[in-house]
Amino acid sequence: MLQHAEIIAIGSELLTPDRLDTNSLFLTERLNSIGIEVELKTIVGDNEERLEQVAREAVKRSALVIATGGLGPTEDDVTKKVFARVLKRQMVLDDQILERIKARFRRRGLEMPANNARQALVPVGGRILDNPAGTAPGLWMEPEGRHVILLPGPPPELKPMFEECCLPRLAELAGGVRLFKQVFKATGITESSLDERIAPIYVKYKNPVTTILASPGEVQIHLTGRGRSEEEARKIVTELADKIEFELGDLIFSRGEENLEQIVGYYLMMREMTLAVAESCTGGLVAQRITSVPGSSSYFLTGVTCYSNRSKIDLAGIPPLVIEMSGAVSAEVAKGLAEGIRLKTGATLGLGITGVAGPAGGSVEKPVGLVHIALSMDSSLDHQELRLAGDRERIRLWASQAALDMVRRKLI
Amino acid sequence: MLQHAEIIAIGSELLTPDRLDTNSLFLTERLNSIGIEVELKTIVGDNEERLEQVAREAVKRSALVIATGGLGPTEDDVTKKVFARVLKRQMVLDDQILERIKARFRRRGLEMPANNARQALVPVGGRILDNPAGTAPGLWMEPEGRHVILLPGPPPELKPMFEECCLPRLAELAGGVRLFKQVFKATGITESSLDERIAPIYVKYKNPVTTILASPGEVQIHLTGRGRSEEEARKIVTELADKIEFELGDLIFSRGEENLEQIVGYYLMMREMTLAVAESCTGGLVAQRITSVPGSSSYFLTGVTCYSNRSKIDLAGIPPLVIEMSGAVSAEVAKGLAEGIRLKTGATLGLGITGVAGPAGGSVEKPVGLVHIALSMDSSLDHQELRLAGDRERIRLWASQAALDMVRRKLI
Repeated sequence: MLQHAEIIAIGSELLTPDRLDTNSLFLTERLNSIGIEVELKTIVGDNEERLEQVAREAVKRSALVIATGGLGPTEDDVTKKVFARVLKRQMVLDDQILERIKARFRRRGLEMPANNARQALVPVGGRILDNPAGTAPGLWMEPEGRHVILLPGPPPELKPMFEECCLPRLAELAGGVRLFKQVFKATGITESSLDERIAPIYVKYKNPVTTILASPGEVQIHLTGRGRSEEEARKIVTELADKIEFELGDLIFSRGEENLEQIVGYYLMMREMTLAVAESCTGGLVAQRITSVPGSSSYFLTGVTCYSNRSKIDLAGIPPLVIEMSGAVSAEVAKGLAEGIRLKTGATLGLGITGVAGPAGGSVEKPVGLVHIALSMDSSLDHQELRLAGDRERIRLWASQAALDMVRRKLI
Repeated sequence: MLQHAEIIAIGSELLTPDRLDTNSLFLTERLNSIGIEVELKTIVGDNEERLEQVAREAVKRSALVIATGGLGPTEDDVTKKVFARVLKRQMVLDDQILERIKARFRRRGLEMPANNARQALVPVGGRILDNPAGTAPGLWMEPEGRHVILLPGPPPELKPMFEECCLPRLAELAGGVRLFKQVFKATGITESSLDERIAPIYVKYKNPVTTILASPGEVQIHLTGRGRSEEEARKIVTELADKIEFELGDLIFSRGEENLEQIVGYYLMMREMTLAVAESCTGGLVAQRITSVPGSSSYFLTGVTCYSNRSKIDLAGIPPLVIEMSGAVSAEVAKGLAEGIRLKTGATLGLGITGVAGPAGGSVEKPVGLVHIALSMDSSLDHQELRLAGDRERIRLWASQAALDMVRRKLI
């Protein structure tokens, strides 16, 4: 039964300071989903000798080896040749592949460059994996009960090929173990406080496995359950998920892949409400996040980035005296921004944000990281004060998250 | 003379779908800068047996092996133990390290947990690398003229340790070869047109090496030269750099690490000018980018995200008739936004952007990707029409880049 895999990523560009092998993240996620763990990853350049060493070791130690890249038509694409040598197989020209590559060029009104014929050379006895998205076919070889799969490097070619030609059979070989994954996204709580609340619940479960990941203003809980069918795995996850959900309640804003701006968008659409934002320290980030969601024009009316005092007065209608008395970073100004932008635009909800994003501009009473957020709706005017740590980017991101969450909570 | 290295990243979290080894990017960049290339990277979990295999192969084949991670105080941190075994060295307790770890805890008013004593166990004959940022010291061993360096996994510990304790000596061992790198960032041109213009120049040079990288609205040119001193390497790069700069002229907006919003900020500050933005399809992205730069409050007055027609009328003072006659996505509205926001805020420059970001909302005359940008200053009112390809995110990013570049060109 297949339980472990190793991945070899091939390409000199993956050994530069500018590029990482990201195909392995996709492969790992898909392999994990059928119960196969990745034990080793190697990244090697377009270097025959080095690749041969690596390939030889890999085939010796692992029952499943997946190699990506190096299947192109140029001289430095050596993957097939090297694996053929390691597995002691001859290379032959596959007429069917050659015909398919030629046809691909014909469809685009071109003649096949001679180089591309190399892509039709395959080691004897390998199963050809079709590549509808490119010219390089993949290959699946089975030397002595082991599995060696060669995939093209470009993600748009690799992903469908793996999904369609590899995953179903690998799932069988892995003994039909299936994984089910549930993600919760929470906000308004730190990673450690969240862990304190749910650790007593999840430590009792070895299956599903619980992982907690934090980013500014957001904590994610990943539950991965393992069963003999997807239904069983789902059931195993659901039991723990229900308990965690009950404990955390509305700290959880998403039970899937949606981000906070999408969730806020759903609520606004559902309630047929509109939103306008007047932001200072977040500088347009809140508007930009909200409008990154397709269709947001149906509920988002206006954003103003009031970076100067005059713009706070002109665009959000804040009385100059308020800024003079309380300062630009104050609860009063946040409230003024929220109410001002709501009245000015006729939106159902008005959101106001002001703060010190740093690195300069802080003082003893108003340090870097101090943020005031206010939300205006009808006669209600809510306010929240935050004291955030970190650099400018982190403070702005965290503040935008808190502001969006204030809208969400108002609409729950 | 050291010319090649291999890197081993250790940690089971690096074999999940959520995490990549990024330390190797830093190490590769630093190693490249002294003329050492990375030939192989391996990522392995906290698994003694697998790590031992990998370490044994690495020490056999490479003159320089750098391993990162697995030096922590817990049971699953096995790096030192495994390398001691591979290099046939005994582990001994180093009193000096033990004392330093204890002192570190004392300074925080804590007693050292028993676990941490493990961090003071080191293989005999290794050179200890100090870790001012953490408890795990690094280690440099030299078995038979080869070099094996063990570094802690957390980047804030690894980076200064490598920079201070490793790089100078490695530079010597690499025979004093020095690399010098020059980056150009260009915009307003596609990758292929840029390459067509500069390929005839750079193909004549094997040293420096030229690499071209593209992202939406930006093309980067990396020149890396190799010499026996930094001066020589710099000279080698400068010769080619000058020719490329002459060819591309003001398509180049940056000769270093600065991004376009920083460059725009420099120009505005230098000319003591102010900017205001009225944006529709970019939804606050332009304001957010400008305000991501520390100190931007001195030149950025106001941004408005005019998502509704009413906000275009109210906030930027566009006559309703213009929207009715030309439509919200039109040269007229872009011009109206630019001029309106400038007059309303008293800024030196007013920038207006409107377009169809998609995926919905396109038509035959006004397809997804159509973007109008206008820039108003005194009596001048410039306008630009773009037809961009790609998804919502790409179109917004590209449009924001083109808008910022319009400001830059006005101020050159």
